Amino acid sequence: MTLPAIVSPFQPDLADRLASAIDNKTKPLGSLGMLEALARQIGMIHGTTTPALAAPALLVFAADHGIVAEGVSAYPQDVTWQMVENFLAGGAAINVFAAHNGCALQVVDAGVAHEFGPRAGLVDRKVAPGTRNFAHEPAMTSGQCARALEHGMALVDALPGNVIGFGEMGIGNTTAAAALMHKLTGIPVAACAGAGTGLSEAGVRRKQEVIEAAVARHAGVTAPLDVLATFGGFEIAMMAGAMLRAAERRMVLLIDGFIVTSALLVAARLQPAILEYCVFAHCSGENGHRRLLEALDATPLLNLGLRLGEGTGSALALPLLHAAVNFLNRMATFESARVSEQSA
Amino acid sequence: MTLPAIVSPFQPDLADRLASAIDNKTKPLGSLGMLEALARQIGMIHGTTTPALAAPALLVFAADHGIVAEGVSAYPQDVTWQMVENFLAGGAAINVFAAHNGCALQVVDAGVAHEFGPRAGLVDRKVAPGTRNFAHEPAMTSGQCARALEHGMALVDALPGNVIGFGEMGIGNTTAAAALMHKLTGIPVAACAGAGTGLSEAGVRRKQEVIEAAVARHAGVTAPLDVLATFGGFEIAMMAGAMLRAAERRMVLLIDGFIVTSALLVAARLQPAILEYCVFAHCSGENGHRRLLEALDATPLLNLGLRLGEGTGSALALPLLHAAVNFLNRMATFESARVSEQSA
Repeated sequence: MTLPAIVSPFQPDLADRLASAIDNKTKPLGSLGMLEALARQIGMIHGTTTPALAAPALLVFAADHGIVAEGVSAYPQDVTWQMVENFLAGGAAINVFAAHNGCALQVVDAGVAHEFGPRAGLVDRKVAPGTRNFAHEPAMTSGQCARALEHGMALVDALPGNVIGFGEMGIGNTTAAAALMHKLTGIPVAACAGAGTGLSEAGVRRKQEVIEAAVARHAGVTAPLDVLATFGGFEIAMMAGAMLRAAERRMVLLIDGFIVTSALLVAARLQPAILEYCVFAHCSGENGHRRLLEALDATPLLNLGLRLGEGTGSALALPLLHAAVNFLNRMATFESARVSEQSA
Repeated sequence: MTLPAIVSPFQPDLADRLASAIDNKTKPLGSLGMLEALARQIGMIHGTTTPALAAPALLVFAADHGIVAEGVSAYPQDVTWQMVENFLAGGAAINVFAAHNGCALQVVDAGVAHEFGPRAGLVDRKVAPGTRNFAHEPAMTSGQCARALEHGMALVDALPGNVIGFGEMGIGNTTAAAALMHKLTGIPVAACAGAGTGLSEAGVRRKQEVIEAAVARHAGVTAPLDVLATFGGFEIAMMAGAMLRAAERRMVLLIDGFIVTSALLVAARLQPAILEYCVFAHCSGENGHRRLLEALDATPLLNLGLRLGEGTGSALALPLLHAAVNFLNRMATFESARVSEQSA
């Protein structure tokens, strides 16, 4: 497997031209705040002062996790496949938000422990019916991990647009994400693991103990891809692959909550330049997300206390990307509108 | 002039039914964070568990301010009418954001110091060509203030929908808003007055001194309507009137930045129940806005460092209102989607 090679989108003359285009719009300097930074970033990624968002797509990756046998989730494992059915029927939050905000939705079975059979609307890239229990053994083999990464890359190659959002569904995946975060940042497990879908305080403590014990068992594992294979999930690995390819193709990457950000963390440890392609949709209410964003030096657009996953934060942030691009392309300049400039 | 009488939208059985409808959706309890509170609030305002947002309208009120003679703004007064022309030509930020987010835009001349003549798309409710300079005399007569309030009410009566956003344009109006905030909350002037469209530090100090001196000159003025007439602007008074009528008519009020919130502050001092009808779109980068929101016990949806006015924050927050209503109306329940409920 060859991983994508990602280069920085930075070009000094383009950065200057974008800054000048933004400053000449009919508004006080800097008065559109984070939208100005967003317009600059999207312009840099697409290599133009007149970027256009084409065919935004949101890929939701679902998979199951062997670690749920340790009692780390508030919901039974069956909820993973049941929610996939809900996605296919259009009844989940992500269906509602993606539809209203003009975002195509693709649901991917990355490794759900359920036989769906051929189903319209479901993209079958099942690596295996759930990972193994990383309390006892690596979650995946290195071959499975490579396959997940490659499927992610290939899915991106088939997309027509230049904006990609990521979402996930997988009972137990906050446990995998917390383990990845701890291993790849060194932040204590207690600051990485949280309530997930709704654990009690005792449940959170139990989850932290499970992660601590697993980390001790696999103490020698340190390389990012090995960490991913040992503690990750198929949806996380597939997202990491998709992210790497999307950045290589100079797409805008819309990063959702805790689990999606853990996939990005793996990708960023392999290719740090990927971060320049990422827009961080929101800061989740899940315990570890704020610290994880800080570790990536990331500023999220929204802070709504969401902790649902599915890519819901990405879908909700999409209108802000449109706003950034639209003001850059459509607002008048002081000169064109004959508005007086600052006098004091 | 009779002011609208606003009653609380609270109904205990509806509150319970809304909470239950939200909790039964296929998502962990509370996992949609602030969107859940928003769905509850809109349901309460519209008096139903299945609210629908009809014909959202954004009214942008423009006016000039006599206080600019004291050198309190970074831009010349002509920018007010020039920006109105920009609104009419479709070149301002608010045009771009309102168009993309499906919000009808109405531009109102509440008191601009410029003769536009009959102009398509401009609603002429000019009370006078700018207020007087409140450094020396009250900004408006009580008759002018009443006329502005009444115009605001009448404009709302002509709206077809049930959601109204507010925006403004008026060189000098952060000075008026800061004076209103200080008089009606008791918060020190230094914490109310900020850089506006881009004053230097020395400019901000000068603006604060102007406000301090004016407050001392009009020390006996304390009743909310008298404070409004003495320190306010025609756009602020017209917004206050529009807000009061909109809440009386049980519309959702989308509150923008510092100046719009100062108009709401006046309205809330007259009719405190109005706050239950208000959705706070964003926290502005303008100095006083965060403290003003705190004084109103308000939690803003967005924190993007915007400080442009025009209603831009309201237009950008509108998709979140749609998201709240849509998840309430369209998401499946655990029962309808046959998804297992929480087990731990």
